[in-house]
Amino acid sequence: MSSPLNDAALDQLFRSARTFNAWQDKEVTDQQLKELYDLVKMGPTSANSSPVRLVFIKSQDAKARLKPFLSENNAEKTMAAPVTAIIATDFAFYDHLPKLFPHADARSWFVGNEALVEATAFRNSTLQGGYLIMAARSLGLDCGPMSGYDQAGLDAEFFPGTQVKSNFLVNIGYGDPNKNLFGRLPRFDFDEVAQVL
Amino acid sequence: MSSPLNDAALDQLFRSARTFNAWQDKEVTDQQLKELYDLVKMGPTSANSSPVRLVFIKSQDAKARLKPFLSENNAEKTMAAPVTAIIATDFAFYDHLPKLFPHADARSWFVGNEALVEATAFRNSTLQGGYLIMAARSLGLDCGPMSGYDQAGLDAEFFPGTQVKSNFLVNIGYGDPNKNLFGRLPRFDFDEVAQVL
Repeated sequence: MSSPLNDAALDQLFRSARTFNAWQDKEVTDQQLKELYDLVKMGPTSANSSPVRLVFIKSQDAKARLKPFLSENNAEKTMAAPVTAIIATDFAFYDHLPKLFPHADARSWFVGNEALVEATAFRNSTLQGGYLIMAARSLGLDCGPMSGYDQAGLDAEFFPGTQVKSNFLVNIGYGDPNKNLFGRLPRFDFDEVAQVL
Repeated sequence: MSSPLNDAALDQLFRSARTFNAWQDKEVTDQQLKELYDLVKMGPTSANSSPVRLVFIKSQDAKARLKPFLSENNAEKTMAAPVTAIIATDFAFYDHLPKLFPHADARSWFVGNEALVEATAFRNSTLQGGYLIMAARSLGLDCGPMSGYDQAGLDAEFFPGTQVKSNFLVNIGYGDPNKNLFGRLPRFDFDEVAQVL
């Protein structure tokens, strides 16, 4: 049985963590991205479907390919980020279930059921994107998630001829708290959005 | 600047954490559910939209209302769980943006744009569900997420006459590692699903 993490850890993961819009000039290494993925991959997905696909944009060449598809308010901060993760979804995820869920014919649950494929792919890719945000924070990194971009354009540039589509973007690095950090926005109280029955 | 959490914390959140199918006979208190929500609510959502709505099923009466909609393989373990969280989505979330995102007319970005409403609601409710799984683990609780249930039936029972629809379910409690804990399933290697550009 586990105990609660200490307050410093809960602060780092949730309470003090912020969405950053400016970044310190400090690299995120490829090794850190592999450590990040090694945490993300352990998070639960439906039938272990693991539909997320990740592109980590680091080089100037890759940034130049990304830039035309960003909304105006996301472009400058994203070009300045050490890394931008494209959180993408493989809508043909079920073809990998014989490997990922070998004890049942899980592929057959999905083939031909387009509504189930769409919902499962989007839901579980997004969950894995959420795990990535939490995993990055757990590794001492800061995040800036965004969904304001030209999805069709980005997908044609980075995932042509595949069933992979982007879901959202996450800038990753060491946030600069002295620049463009917005005031904390209000949240709903428990009783406004939750109930115990 | 934050440091990485220690290995015990990373294990608790990601590496050793498991999807549990059986539960110790130990209560999860209403106070713990409020602590859980107070972490979940801090996670980032698009335009602070916070579309998740939560119903925590604890009582025998509420369990009896839930049971008819569970798939056969999810029913027994769910009835035995201390709490089942219904992770739901408010598709009219944008009506709250004047409160949640007061510095811009964010409501107008969504009204009449059904595709954007649907995607934003589903994506951000799911992210918040992912934060809930990670928050529960950070509080020393175990989870068992599920999407196998009769969504339309459950929604008619718990959210009639609203624009709230369920997204997925999460059993919450203290897992019993000696009963119905499946073997760890394989995960993709970094190079199979990720690239650094």
